[in-house]
Amino acid sequence: MNNKEIDTLLSSIHSPADLRRLSPKDLPRLCDELRACLIQELSVNPGHFASSLGVVEITVALHYVFDTPNDRIVWDVGHQAYIHKMLTGRREQFSTNRKLGGLHPFPCPSESEYDTFTCGHASNSISAALGMAVADKLKESKRLSVAVIGDGSMTGGLAFEGLNNASYIDNDMLIILNDNNMSIDHSVGGMKNYLHHLHTGATYNNFRQRASQRLMQWGWINEDSKKRIIAFNNAMKALLNNHQNIFEGMNIRYFGPRDGHDVVELVHTLQSIKDMKGPKLLHLHTRKGKGYEPAEKNATEWHAPGKFNPETGERIVSENNNLPPRFQDVFGHTIVELAKQNPRIVGITPAMPTGCSLNIMMQEMPDRAFDVGIAEGHAVTFSAGMATEGLQPFCNIYSAFAQRAYDNIIHDVAIERLPVVFCFDRAGLVGEDGATHHGAFDMAALRPIPNLTICSPMDEHELRHMMYTAQLPDKGPFIIRYPRGRAEHTDWECPMKELPIGKARCIKQGEEIALLSIGPLGCTAQRAIAKAEQMAQEQGKELHIAHYDMRFLKPIDEELLHEVGKHFKYIVTLEDGAKNGGLGSAVIEFMMDNGYMPRVTRLGLPDSFVEHGTVEELHHIVGIDEEAIIKTLTGFKL
Amino acid sequence: MNNKEIDTLLSSIHSPADLRRLSPKDLPRLCDELRACLIQELSVNPGHFASSLGVVEITVALHYVFDTPNDRIVWDVGHQAYIHKMLTGRREQFSTNRKLGGLHPFPCPSESEYDTFTCGHASNSISAALGMAVADKLKESKRLSVAVIGDGSMTGGLAFEGLNNASYIDNDMLIILNDNNMSIDHSVGGMKNYLHHLHTGATYNNFRQRASQRLMQWGWINEDSKKRIIAFNNAMKALLNNHQNIFEGMNIRYFGPRDGHDVVELVHTLQSIKDMKGPKLLHLHTRKGKGYEPAEKNATEWHAPGKFNPETGERIVSENNNLPPRFQDVFGHTIVELAKQNPRIVGITPAMPTGCSLNIMMQEMPDRAFDVGIAEGHAVTFSAGMATEGLQPFCNIYSAFAQRAYDNIIHDVAIERLPVVFCFDRAGLVGEDGATHHGAFDMAALRPIPNLTICSPMDEHELRHMMYTAQLPDKGPFIIRYPRGRAEHTDWECPMKELPIGKARCIKQGEEIALLSIGPLGCTAQRAIAKAEQMAQEQGKELHIAHYDMRFLKPIDEELLHEVGKHFKYIVTLEDGAKNGGLGSAVIEFMMDNGYMPRVTRLGLPDSFVEHGTVEELHHIVGIDEEAIIKTLTGFKL
Repeated sequence: MNNKEIDTLLSSIHSPADLRRLSPKDLPRLCDELRACLIQELSVNPGHFASSLGVVEITVALHYVFDTPNDRIVWDVGHQAYIHKMLTGRREQFSTNRKLGGLHPFPCPSESEYDTFTCGHASNSISAALGMAVADKLKESKRLSVAVIGDGSMTGGLAFEGLNNASYIDNDMLIILNDNNMSIDHSVGGMKNYLHHLHTGATYNNFRQRASQRLMQWGWINEDSKKRIIAFNNAMKALLNNHQNIFEGMNIRYFGPRDGHDVVELVHTLQSIKDMKGPKLLHLHTRKGKGYEPAEKNATEWHAPGKFNPETGERIVSENNNLPPRFQDVFGHTIVELAKQNPRIVGITPAMPTGCSLNIMMQEMPDRAFDVGIAEGHAVTFSAGMATEGLQPFCNIYSAFAQRAYDNIIHDVAIERLPVVFCFDRAGLVGEDGATHHGAFDMAALRPIPNLTICSPMDEHELRHMMYTAQLPDKGPFIIRYPRGRAEHTDWECPMKELPIGKARCIKQGEEIALLSIGPLGCTAQRAIAKAEQMAQEQGKELHIAHYDMRFLKPIDEELLHEVGKHFKYIVTLEDGAKNGGLGSAVIEFMMDNGYMPRVTRLGLPDSFVEHGTVEELHHIVGIDEEAIIKTLTGFKL
Repeated sequence: MNNKEIDTLLSSIHSPADLRRLSPKDLPRLCDELRACLIQELSVNPGHFASSLGVVEITVALHYVFDTPNDRIVWDVGHQAYIHKMLTGRREQFSTNRKLGGLHPFPCPSESEYDTFTCGHASNSISAALGMAVADKLKESKRLSVAVIGDGSMTGGLAFEGLNNASYIDNDMLIILNDNNMSIDHSVGGMKNYLHHLHTGATYNNFRQRASQRLMQWGWINEDSKKRIIAFNNAMKALLNNHQNIFEGMNIRYFGPRDGHDVVELVHTLQSIKDMKGPKLLHLHTRKGKGYEPAEKNATEWHAPGKFNPETGERIVSENNNLPPRFQDVFGHTIVELAKQNPRIVGITPAMPTGCSLNIMMQEMPDRAFDVGIAEGHAVTFSAGMATEGLQPFCNIYSAFAQRAYDNIIHDVAIERLPVVFCFDRAGLVGEDGATHHGAFDMAALRPIPNLTICSPMDEHELRHMMYTAQLPDKGPFIIRYPRGRAEHTDWECPMKELPIGKARCIKQGEEIALLSIGPLGCTAQRAIAKAEQMAQEQGKELHIAHYDMRFLKPIDEELLHEVGKHFKYIVTLEDGAKNGGLGSAVIEFMMDNGYMPRVTRLGLPDSFVEHGTVEELHHIVGIDEEAIIKTLTGFKL
């Protein structure tokens, strides 16, 4: 495949205005070119793949029919928006996507006027586009608003709240329901089944025609009552399918389902409905990975496949045999191991079985592992309900997405001290997914909540000990946070032991400085301490740095802190989380409350949103990498 | 009305087991007695009134048919649960309801085995009951789970997430939809309209019968295909009503709507469906305030009416003429005043127009004030969408309910620094509503979030200045928190002025001690300081306490803190919010970062859930009342 050769149409498109100069009959070819370009780009520059392939035609049709950037398109979960970026003047820079200083991983209003809203977390597009649509009504502007939402995102409560509001507020919003029967894994729930049955078949059309004729003969319906006929059609569909149309039921005009890959037909449909008054929904069936056979066959694996050979579809997987395991896999295997011993254990994930490795348990113990859909709040409250009946839920949520369940953790779990174990995966900086996905705030936000135990493992052995400890009797709500990526040791399968709650461990004794770390950054600290001491030695100085792995943010080890407060003049705290309110704050609160006066230097995430880049690059920028720690440790005037 | 006389049946009921010994024909009389007892109790001991009156028959029928406490009833929003308390052994103590040390305002598992889950925040019952139902399936127990949810709570996304999950997980849960077309104010949205039209009328029955006969004649449906017939019935309803049944669409078996006040019929219905397999929903129409005419006529006013004369329905309103206004009313009038000058201003409330006084704007400017239903997350994201189009939303949420929107504030507002003004009403301790309703965590949870401005007014004049300042150009996301209840001055209508962002104000100069307060507790501090200085003087000592109203938690006034750090050995911080992570932590972080070594004493809310009682009682208990401040100020060894 030669990029130059296939680029002939695409190379003339620098903005949607260029696109709109094409004839509709050229659009299928443009879609092919875009698809080829995307495959080529992502084969060398990894990113979210299958979802963008699925929306090529939708994206082209939307920008063709709507007057962007004046009209507003809101993409629900922005990893489907790569084609959108390519069409809106960012094709040339696309190789910088997700890289430090490069294009943002998701649509980003500060990057492009075509990006209308922050699109990192699922299910917010309807609410945002409704806000835009209502604002435009108030301002009497003619601009149109479109939300593009997948069927997976439709299971999120926020989408429903938006729909419910859209149904009675004066607005002309269009909702595109991109139904591929997938979020990252297969989507689940009544909504999925429901959407699946909203189809138009020959039987149905036949039936509808005959039935409507009869009913009109009886005088029960007539041609004039147009609204009733729409409802009638949907009721008939419902009758045949044992399903009804909730959108029409909510006064949102429903169109579809249609083929989301027929770009010419799509343009035609959009043109005919775009200026209709009132809220409306166009239901499109698409295929995740469309146009690239390997991805069509296994869309979950090709959600974000890494590098691959575009010709053969062979994924270029680096040799992992000698690498330590990923934290998520340690979780995935360990929960199965624990669940075999403890029949009370159940596992819950909101739509991330592959991402958090709960899929291992779902395969081995399908009755005891639950994927509840993109529904973080429900995942927590559902877990709490199970806990009231004596079960021991392990509820695994990405740290940034757990922000969605903040109230559920407080109100439904902490107040009654229910024994739910939360495993927050992707805690701390996650790298290329950027500001929306960093798990920066969990420790600071949850530390003020009474009754919680909050801990973070320094390595995979510690993770296993913490998981073991958490499921022992009477531990109450227990939060274990760990990062994306790999741990430290290859021999992760250690025997598990109970850890004393709220007790730190001494990694290394010392004299002048005490470094208190939480989580895997402790391993970075170990290396930094060794180097700092060596540097001092090389300069003929004595430096003995004590290192404590705090293990628990809450309850914090007060006995240890008394010792540290008494014996150390300098304390350094280190955490992969917001500095304000986190471990460092807990330490200085303690020192102040108890009358100790050490100098405490806090290393952690700054009071600004951290952008995208590799984890290493970001750790360097925010000053929690080895270099920064060494600099801090060697900078004191002892 | 004589309590003794009417109590004959009720006096024999000490638990649901006693209830179940009655004959069904006695139940209407019991309901009358319960209603009379409730009216009598609440006339002298104020509480939530109208909603409990509406569920008398539902409560009696549920405890009559289900084997409580073995079977599990989850009340969505517990203020409807007073009758439940009276039937479950707490009638004698009912006069202690909501009082310090007395019965909890909402069902509380640590209070009674009949209380199955924490029920302070709306929309969590389906998720919780589903967790219980699934747990019981796994444990192969025979216990049944019932969620009782109002139509208002049904607009919450969490309820939808629960429904969606219930539709495909193996469970036998029963959902009672208590449809009174109200939450506290009238409920809003497509869901409301939708439920309103799910009714059975004569026309419908007639039509259904004739149509089904014809369709069977044609051979398109037959008696055997039971599922289809259910769907058919609902489809026919839908056809006639332009609405369809979303519950059946989601595979949740639907029964109703029925009269929720016919207790004998209710018992019969519940008995016939309770052991059916699979998830099912019983839709009941009830009337908020049922059986007490004044409350039936104005359910919003009688949601929590305070004391009243049970005979006449006259509410015993204390004379308010000389009292300062409530903060909520200052908000309500000021937003209208500002909106008249600034056409970009819009107001948003998630179902609390009366509670937050946005109803004033809704009356004066109906196009620019939006009640979006019980949907805090959507309220925020919808506001963000409006802000992207140049509007200036004021989004008013109770502090404790804003926990529901934590991610929306971060992801949809803060990242892009959208100019949404959040007014958090009911911030700090709210009194009788207790642990679920205290606005304890907002400051600590939001301080770590970049790009936010967070402030709290010391009095109503300050609230007006802050609201004025927040809507000026380029202020970004702006949070103003203020408590439940009344302010300080009766002359609240001052001219408004711009406050410099992040600048404190000096209330009083001093020498030995600096007190830094945020919010209306500053007024308490003023009084405490005067008394402490006087006490010192009486003992022949010199005491000069400086007092600064910080105004802004974030950005914090660093210039002032440098001055304070340089000149004061003792600092006292004072806040009506979680001590860990709040203002006090911000102050000591600053002191530590800048090398100052004062002694900082933090006064604020403890690391435990604060129970119910009057605000004064609770301030005393947690140590933020005048007495506690004086004690702190006079306790230093100067």
